[in-house]
Amino acid sequence: MIHSSFVDATLEMVDQTLQSANSCFLEFSKKKAKERAHFLDCIADHLEKQQPVVIEIAEQETKLGLVRLAGECSRTIQQIRLFADLARNEDWRELSFEKGEPHRVPLPKPEMWKENQPIGPVVVLGACNFPLAISVVGTDTASALAVGCPVVVKSHPGHAQTCQFLADLVNVAKEESNMPDGCFSLLHGENHEISAAMVSHPKTACVAFTGSFVGGKALSQISKSRTKPIPFHAEMGSVNPVFGLPSAIKEKGDSLINSYVGAVNLFCGQMCTKPGAFIILKDSFDEIFLARLQEAVSNQKNLPMLNTDVHQNFERSSNFLRRELELLAESGDAIDGQIGNIQIYKASAQDFLNRSDLRTESFGPASLLIIARTDLEMIEIAKAMEGNLTGSMLVGSRDQKLASILFPILESKVGRILWNGFPPGVTPGLATHHGGPWPATTDARFTSIGLHGYKRFVRPICKQGFPDLRGVT
Amino acid sequence: MIHSSFVDATLEMVDQTLQSANSCFLEFSKKKAKERAHFLDCIADHLEKQQPVVIEIAEQETKLGLVRLAGECSRTIQQIRLFADLARNEDWRELSFEKGEPHRVPLPKPEMWKENQPIGPVVVLGACNFPLAISVVGTDTASALAVGCPVVVKSHPGHAQTCQFLADLVNVAKEESNMPDGCFSLLHGENHEISAAMVSHPKTACVAFTGSFVGGKALSQISKSRTKPIPFHAEMGSVNPVFGLPSAIKEKGDSLINSYVGAVNLFCGQMCTKPGAFIILKDSFDEIFLARLQEAVSNQKNLPMLNTDVHQNFERSSNFLRRELELLAESGDAIDGQIGNIQIYKASAQDFLNRSDLRTESFGPASLLIIARTDLEMIEIAKAMEGNLTGSMLVGSRDQKLASILFPILESKVGRILWNGFPPGVTPGLATHHGGPWPATTDARFTSIGLHGYKRFVRPICKQGFPDLRGVT
Repeated sequence: MIHSSFVDATLEMVDQTLQSANSCFLEFSKKKAKERAHFLDCIADHLEKQQPVVIEIAEQETKLGLVRLAGECSRTIQQIRLFADLARNEDWRELSFEKGEPHRVPLPKPEMWKENQPIGPVVVLGACNFPLAISVVGTDTASALAVGCPVVVKSHPGHAQTCQFLADLVNVAKEESNMPDGCFSLLHGENHEISAAMVSHPKTACVAFTGSFVGGKALSQISKSRTKPIPFHAEMGSVNPVFGLPSAIKEKGDSLINSYVGAVNLFCGQMCTKPGAFIILKDSFDEIFLARLQEAVSNQKNLPMLNTDVHQNFERSSNFLRRELELLAESGDAIDGQIGNIQIYKASAQDFLNRSDLRTESFGPASLLIIARTDLEMIEIAKAMEGNLTGSMLVGSRDQKLASILFPILESKVGRILWNGFPPGVTPGLATHHGGPWPATTDARFTSIGLHGYKRFVRPICKQGFPDLRGVT
Repeated sequence: MIHSSFVDATLEMVDQTLQSANSCFLEFSKKKAKERAHFLDCIADHLEKQQPVVIEIAEQETKLGLVRLAGECSRTIQQIRLFADLARNEDWRELSFEKGEPHRVPLPKPEMWKENQPIGPVVVLGACNFPLAISVVGTDTASALAVGCPVVVKSHPGHAQTCQFLADLVNVAKEESNMPDGCFSLLHGENHEISAAMVSHPKTACVAFTGSFVGGKALSQISKSRTKPIPFHAEMGSVNPVFGLPSAIKEKGDSLINSYVGAVNLFCGQMCTKPGAFIILKDSFDEIFLARLQEAVSNQKNLPMLNTDVHQNFERSSNFLRRELELLAESGDAIDGQIGNIQIYKASAQDFLNRSDLRTESFGPASLLIIARTDLEMIEIAKAMEGNLTGSMLVGSRDQKLASILFPILESKVGRILWNGFPPGVTPGLATHHGGPWPATTDARFTSIGLHGYKRFVRPICKQGFPDLRGVT
């Protein structure tokens, strides 16, 4: 169990914070577009100035490495500015207009327009593996603030100092840009009761969660017990299958295997898009393939995991896989208690098809190489896959036929489909979709990363018969 | 209890039907845009040809009147053609494209595009009060088919003959346009178990329900018990408050009161947007107002209700109101067991604020006139309102100040806001939003009527690194 140096919020604090978020909702949502944009710009400015400090704190708490954290910090700043622009141009309102027909028979058609409104206070529960980009000032917070929703973030116990530091920046920006106090708050909480209370609070209008399947499912259950239902968005675990078609393996075997192992070990496999299953045909799996795989694994550097909790979970999952499957390749032993070493296991298509315990995410640098005896078995695997964030296809010059069968099946199972590539991190932008059918997320129609992340936090309203286009205010 | 002449579907039939909807999902979703558009056009053509017959059958079952049913049939045809166009132009894909940056540091940015995919088999549970426009071939069905989702409709026991007749038309259109059999089915069911089985079926990807709060809530509970969560969209009851500001009443009292009473009695008050509460100030409520109200009520014609079930529920609700409140105006006695007579009750703001049983919909031609003693009390009422489909403001030349306070409050509670008008039926189009915060609907971010109804049935998918913009298929 990780312990942060912060005292847990009390249930009274949770209530007060959400009451205060709700009380300022109207005021905050009616701030001028440029004022809310300025607020977000201020946050980005402060983060930019404090970049070295925040990276240092995050490194102490997460061991993700300074290079990665610097990259993540840049991305976070970029995301906040993206949403500052969105707040400024008000594209999020998605205005549509319909001319009236006063002389229509049998009834006149009224003039109407429709535009989005913010939904209300948003609760944000960030991820353990992105202390900056999916945390206190990540897409969830920035997109909610951009459209006028007050935000209450629960600090992640794995990087509570980083959370507090980021919240302090937001609080300064809040004052500088003259925003109501309740529009942003941070609550600490190691006890799951805090998250539960935030999700069930009557003033919470929407929840954005990024984390494990177990955590997401438990909070989803709690959200279902609410009298007043609210959208509950969880981005959870994912296996992210990669289908390596025979001609691709033959033509580009070496580089593909290196990319695969690199993707498995990227940030110690602690990525929601880590390829957890690499499916190839029996004929592709020869001695050369195995030797290349083992070499690629041995060329990788073992990396530290986020914290002891994450490491213990990974060990539990590794012990299970080691007991059940053949270990094909493994990087050197863990040096200390928090290092996650790469492990590639072999499984038959039948095992993978019949055992759901092999189709669950192992959070860390482990992956299964699934051997399909035939094209048909490969197709069966695609059909049996549950929802995933990503699915990939490696397609060579003579794989077109199998690819054209696999493609629509895979498409129906994932939020992002990659052609001849392994799932890297997500690039936040207009065309980003970081979501996927259950159990990858609770609602595949929305994304937790990218410009359209705001769509979770708005609802349309139709205005009819108004004297002018903007109503009375 | 209404009895249709059809035998209930068995649970095996429910299972087979949804399995078959799911089996054809891929084939149906991959039909060319113009093919699916043609399918919808065929449905519209057949409905157009059979208009006199379908209106006659619907009249026998619902007593809504030939004029109203003819209007509803035109609207239904128009809606289907709207979605035929949508299927044809594929605007529902909402394509967004992002250029790659192959030389970006530290990592290249991949080329990506995002477009919508159909979500899977959709279960449609239509309304009792719109046997054509919110039924077998209403917005739910037409928008789902347009984007490539197979549809399974449960017939409404109140107009099962109409449902079967409409389904027969769709089945002919299905054959003519060479669509897979499973892409559309109708199941009969008086027993609630049938609906429950349809909502809980593992192959159901989304549910669209229009009906009572009690029914919607019960099915929503069932949907929550699913292992795999799916979007459950219910459009339920609504009080649709109208705020009559003092100067408006003074200036246009006569016509406003007539419009109010007309809206209360429109189709015997069996409209989801019937104004169930008219809030005015104490000073507006003088002898002239009361006399005008009584005259307006006596000028109305009593209408038959949809069926004996609906009438019995209305009687129960009237008996309650009669016991609890002062009856201000009532149209002549009911002539036979199925006539709903207009009833306007008086309630104090305090009663309305303190008693949630007065803030629930009475489905039929009853409405409460709420007397607020002060501006502040009127504002309190607006603040205390729960979610509604519509909210209206009647604003006169000297009401600007009160209106500007009420407006943002009302806006945060409704899906559609009307300025100087009573909520009529909905005009389906681009700017239509027929939704609203709980308890009006289960998810205020979506609409059950209008072009954007399709948004319930699509999810985005991001494609990365593809050789051409349309993938391999």
